[in-house]
Amino acid sequence: MVDEDPVSSNPQHYRTVFENEHVRVLDYADEPGEVTTPHLHPNSVMITLTNFHRRLSTAEGDRDVHLTANQAVWIPAQRHAGVNTGTTPTHTILVELKGAAAGVVDESVIGPATT
Amino acid sequence: MVDEDPVSSNPQHYRTVFENEHVRVLDYADEPGEVTTPHLHPNSVMITLTNFHRRLSTAEGDRDVHLTANQAVWIPAQRHAGVNTGTTPTHTILVELKGAAAGVVDESVIGPATT
Repeated sequence: MVDEDPVSSNPQHYRTVFENEHVRVLDYADEPGEVTTPHLHPNSVMITLTNFHRRLSTAEGDRDVHLTANQAVWIPAQRHAGVNTGTTPTHTILVELKGAAAGVVDESVIGPATT
Repeated sequence: MVDEDPVSSNPQHYRTVFENEHVRVLDYADEPGEVTTPHLHPNSVMITLTNFHRRLSTAEGDRDVHLTANQAVWIPAQRHAGVNTGTTPTHTILVELKGAAAGVVDESVIGPATT
């Protein structure tokens, strides 16, 4: 079975900051051009600490996402892989929700909610 | 009845970034010396975007909290007021949890979890 938890499947980029019964908080960091293997996100809030230029890919397609630093966005539960398409390192915090709030992966969803 | 929702009771500092059934995400910003009136936080994750030097006060006592930028900490449900005791503006994001995950205010708790 393929490991799709980003902390264990992509440990060079993801680390757990803390975890309790309600949330798991991850720190994500990369350099331009670096990629992730396909991994799962439960419903999460992502907070950008830097500019964020990224191509996200799922089985159904790609999406280019561009955010500035200090934005907070909703990430619906999804499975994707990514690449830093920018010219600077990416640094973000992900607040993953647990339990029923974690949601169910929708294979048609890529990246942050747009509304 | 006193309004203890920080978005409506302290609108000069708190604004809602987005809200859905699982979370409400707040942006907090202030200048050195500025204060908040007593307000409630449900269980939340706070992400610092700047240094964070703050005295938090409850009915039971005070606590000085010092954080650096880009930290993520757990804020157990609590009621407090605060003052920016630093020499620079504060900017943070708060991810408030809803439903059972929001927890119940414990009047003995002040500030971030220490473990």
